[in-house]
Amino acid sequence: MEDIVVVFKEKPNLKDPVFVEGLPGVGNVGKLAAEHLVDQLKAVKFAELFSKFFPPQVLVNDSGIIRLVSNDLYYVKRPDASHDIVIMTGDYQGLTPDGQYELSDKTLKIIKELGVKRVYTLGGYGLGKLIEKPRVLGAATDPELVEEMKKHGVVFSKGEPGSGIVGASGLLLGLGGLYDMRSVCLMGETSGYFVDPKGAQAVLEVLSKILDVKINFAELEAKAEQIDMITSKLRESEPAPEPKREDLGYIG
Amino acid sequence: MEDIVVVFKEKPNLKDPVFVEGLPGVGNVGKLAAEHLVDQLKAVKFAELFSKFFPPQVLVNDSGIIRLVSNDLYYVKRPDASHDIVIMTGDYQGLTPDGQYELSDKTLKIIKELGVKRVYTLGGYGLGKLIEKPRVLGAATDPELVEEMKKHGVVFSKGEPGSGIVGASGLLLGLGGLYDMRSVCLMGETSGYFVDPKGAQAVLEVLSKILDVKINFAELEAKAEQIDMITSKLRESEPAPEPKREDLGYIG
Amino acid sequence: MEDIVVVFKEKPNLKDPVFVEGLPGVGNVGKLAAEHLVDQLKAVKFAELFSKFFPPQVLVNDSGIIRLVSNDLYYVKRPDASHDIVIMTGDYQGLTPDGQYELSDKTLKIIKELGVKRVYTLGGYGLGKLIEKPRVLGAATDPELVEEMKKHGVVFSKGEPGSGIVGASGLLLGLGGLYDMRSVCLMGETSGYFVDPKGAQAVLEVLSKILDVKINFAELEAKAEQIDMITSKLRESEPAPEPKREDLGYIG
Amino acid sequence: MEDIVVVFKEKPNLKDPVFVEGLPGVGNVGKLAAEHLVDQLKAVKFAELFSKFFPPQVLVNDSGIIRLVSNDLYYVKRPDASHDIVIMTGDYQGLTPDGQYELSDKTLKIIKELGVKRVYTLGGYGLGKLIEKPRVLGAATDPELVEEMKKHGVVFSKGEPGSGIVGASGLLLGLGGLYDMRSVCLMGETSGYFVDPKGAQAVLEVLSKILDVKINFAELEAKAEQIDMITSKLRESEPAPEPKREDLGYIG
Repeated sequence: MEDIVVVFKEKPNLKDPVFVEGLPGVGNVGKLAAEHLVDQLKAVKFAELFSKFFPPQVLVNDSGIIRLVSNDLYYVKRPDASHDIVIMTGDYQGLTPDGQYELSDKTLKIIKELGVKRVYTLGGYGLGKLIEKPRVLGAATDPELVEEMKKHGVVFSKGEPGSGIVGASGLLLGLGGLYDMRSVCLMGETSGYFVDPKGAQAVLEVLSKILDVKINFAELEAKAEQIDMITSKLRESEPAPEPKREDLGYIG
Repeated sequence: MEDIVVVFKEKPNLKDPVFVEGLPGVGNVGKLAAEHLVDQLKAVKFAELFSKFFPPQVLVNDSGIIRLVSNDLYYVKRPDASHDIVIMTGDYQGLTPDGQYELSDKTLKIIKELGVKRVYTLGGYGLGKLIEKPRVLGAATDPELVEEMKKHGVVFSKGEPGSGIVGASGLLLGLGGLYDMRSVCLMGETSGYFVDPKGAQAVLEVLSKILDVKINFAELEAKAEQIDMITSKLRESEPAPEPKREDLGYIG
Repeated sequence: MEDIVVVFKEKPNLKDPVFVEGLPGVGNVGKLAAEHLVDQLKAVKFAELFSKFFPPQVLVNDSGIIRLVSNDLYYVKRPDASHDIVIMTGDYQGLTPDGQYELSDKTLKIIKELGVKRVYTLGGYGLGKLIEKPRVLGAATDPELVEEMKKHGVVFSKGEPGSGIVGASGLLLGLGGLYDMRSVCLMGETSGYFVDPKGAQAVLEVLSKILDVKINFAELEAKAEQIDMITSKLRESEPAPEPKREDLGYIG
Repeated sequence: MEDIVVVFKEKPNLKDPVFVEGLPGVGNVGKLAAEHLVDQLKAVKFAELFSKFFPPQVLVNDSGIIRLVSNDLYYVKRPDASHDIVIMTGDYQGLTPDGQYELSDKTLKIIKELGVKRVYTLGGYGLGKLIEKPRVLGAATDPELVEEMKKHGVVFSKGEPGSGIVGASGLLLGLGGLYDMRSVCLMGETSGYFVDPKGAQAVLEVLSKILDVKINFAELEAKAEQIDMITSKLRESEPAPEPKREDLGYIG
C-alpha cells in the first residue's frame, strides 16, 4: 500500500488560501483549537489522509460505526475576505520520526497544489506547572512575520522554546521552506498535565485576529471550567506531579 | 525480498465468498475461534503469507519438522448455500504498526480478487476481570450491518470499546472501506488474562448463526474447563492481577 | 545505499556445495563452531556482506586498523569428496526482524547461485542451567533429514525447542523452502550464561561426521577450560543467576 | 519525500580537498571540534542535509526564527596549501542504525564528487572518569596512515577502543572503503559526563598539525574553564556517577 493514502471527497477551488494545522500534542492545545475553528467556521471536510505511520486502529462511534484513524482537511470559503482557509486536524501525529517527516511533506505537497503560501501551526507550550493566564508564544520562518505577529500579541521570548518545536507544528515550518511557504507556529502556554481548552482559546484569540474571523468561545470556556474543577480537586488532595522535561538543545 | 510473500497452493473458484479473520490477540479469542471454524468446516488451506513483518522465527513440530511462521488462508465450499467462506488465521500479527497496515492491505487485495464483499473479523474484548457469561460486542462499517447484527444477539454498547479496535480486526474494517467491503468486527468478552476458549465459543455461536453453519463446541468446551480449573486454583491462592488498560481515545 | 552490499573477492566455482551457517546467538555456540570450522578447514574468504541492518559500527584491531562489521562467506574445496563447503559467520545478526528476513533471503540467493542444495545452521539451545555433557538437538525441513540426522546422534526431542528457532538459524530453514533447499538446524545445549565452546564442540562433532571432515578440538577445549574455571569460581561465590526464558509458542 | 534532501547553496570547485567530520557524540567532542574549526577557518557553508532520519524538530533562535535540524557542509579554500578542506557538522546523527548508514553513505557520495580522497572523523573516547590531560586515540583504514598519525602524537593503543567505533565517525571510515577513501578517526579522551571542550581542543591540536592550519583556542579554553568550575563544584558535593559502559565486542 502507499505510505499515505489521500482520499479526496472534493478538490476545492480556493482563493489565495492560508493553512491552519492543529494536531494532538502537548495539552492537546493545537487539536482543540483546530477542531473549534472547524466547528465555528462551519468548515467543509474535503480530504482524508490514512497512513501506515498512524496506529493500526479504528475508532468506534456511539452507533457502533467504525472509522479508520486519519488526518483530515477542511476548507472555509470566505467571499468577503481576501483569503480562504484550509484547516487540518486529526486523531494522531505520525508514530515514528520518519513517519512525521513523510506526513508533513505530503501535507505540504497537497496545500501547495491548493495555492497555499502562508501556514499557521497551532500547538501547546508545556510549562510543567498550572497557569492562570496563558500567553501565546511564537516562532516563524522570517523576521517580517515575527514583527507582524508581535502586533497581534504573540510573544517572542528569547530562549523559549529552548528545545525547539517537535512534531508537525515544527516540521511544517521547517520543511515548508522547501516549498516556499512563509509560516508561523503559535504555541499556547499550558501545564501539559491535562487537555487544555484554555491554552486552545488563547491561541484562537490570536489567530482570529490574524485571520479576521469571529469565534464564539462558549464551548471552549465550558470545557475549561470542567477541567478547572477537576484540577482544583486534585490540587486539594495531592501535590502536583513533577513534570518530565526533556531539553533537546545542545550546548555548542 | 518482497515485504509479504504469498504462496498459493491453489487458486480456488468461489461462489460469492464471505471472509472470516481470527488472529492472535486479546485472550487469543479470534485465533481460537477461527481455528475451531477451520476444523469444524474442514476448511482447505490454499495460501500462506510469509512476511518480514512477522518475527524471524520457525516453529518445530513434534517430529522435528520446521515451518516458517505465517498467516494462512482456507476456503470452504458450500454447494447448498449462497456463500462460500474464506478463513484467515495464523501465528502472529505484524510486529510493527506499518507492518500491520501492509498485511491487512495485502489480505484485502487477495480476498478482493476472490470476490469477497463481506468481512467478519473476530477478536477479544478485554475486561480486566474474570467473566462468567461473555457477551459478543460488535462494530461495523454501516448502520444496516449494525441492525442486522443486533438480530443475531450482537451487543452494540455506547462507549464500548472506548479505545477503538487495534490490529488486524480493526484495520480490515477500516482499510476495507477503500476496497468497497462491508464489514463487521465481533468481539467476545474475555478477562484478557488467559487464552479464552469461552470467549471464542461466544463469538462462534453468533457467527454460526450469521453464516448458517453447524458447529460442535465439545472441543472448545473441554479447553474452557481446563482453563477454568487453572484459574479457580489461582483465585484461591492469590488475588487477581491488576489489568493494564490503555485508553487510546482522546477527549476532544 | 543498497540494504545489503555484497563485496565479492572471488566467485568460486564449487562442486555440489553444502552450506554451513554460524552467527552470534545463544552462548555464541553457532559463531564459535563456524569460526573453528573455518580455521580447521583453512576455508577461504570470498565475500563480505555489509548492511544497514547491522549496527553502525567499525571494529578496531590491535594495529589500529578498522573494518566495518560484516557477515562473511568462505569456501572449502575438497577434491576427494563429493561436496565442497560454503561457510558463513560474522559479527552480528540483523538488528531488526525485517533486517533478519532480508539478510537470510540475500544469503539464500547467493548460495542458490553457488549451487547449494543442502543447508546446516548451527546454534545454541539455552537451558538456563549449567550442563556437563551438552546434547545436540535438531530440527529439519523434512522427515528423511530427521532420520538421517538421528543416525549421527542428533536428538529430536518432542517439545524442544518449544518456542521454535529465532534468527538466522531458523530463517535460513524457513525461507530456504522457497529456494528448494533441504536444511537442518543443529543446536548445542548450553547454559546460555556464557560464551560456550563446549556447546560449539558438541555441534562440530556431529557436523564433522555429517560432512566427513577431520577437526582438531584442542583450541576449543582450551577455551572451554578457561570458561569452566571462571564459572566454577562464580558458582562458589554466588548462586547461579535466574535465566530469562521467553516462550514465544502459543497454546492454540 | 527523499530520505535525505541535500540543498546546495553553491557547488564549490575545490583543490584536492580533505574532509573533516564532527557530529554530536560522546562528550560532544567531535561537534565542538568541527564547529571551532569552522569558526577559526571562516569556512563557508555550501550545503545542508535534511533527513527523515533526524528528529522531527525545528530549532528556534533568539529572534524567534526557526530552522530545520540538519547536517551542514562547509568549505575552506587555501590558495597557499595543497589541500582545500570540507567540514561537516550538525545538530544530530541519524536516529536509527539504518539511518546512520544512509547518512554516511550519502555524505561519502557527496564528498567523492567533490574530489575528496582523505577523511578525518572526530569524536570522543569515553573513559567514565574525569581526566586532566586527554590523549588523542586513533584508528585508520591502513597501516601507512597509522604510522603517519603516530608522528603527529596520535596514540594507537592495543585494545582501545575495545568496542569499536559507533556512529558516523566509524561508518565514514568503514563505508569509505567502498569509495576508495583513506581515513582516520581521531578520538579525544573525555569523561563522557559533560560537554567536553578540553577533549575537543586535544583533537584539534593534532588535526591542526595534520592539516597545517593555525587555530586559536581561547574560546574553547574559556568554555573548558566554565565546565571545570561546574564539575569541581559537583565533585565537592557528591561522588562521581558510575558510568554505563557497553562492550559490544565479542569474545570469539
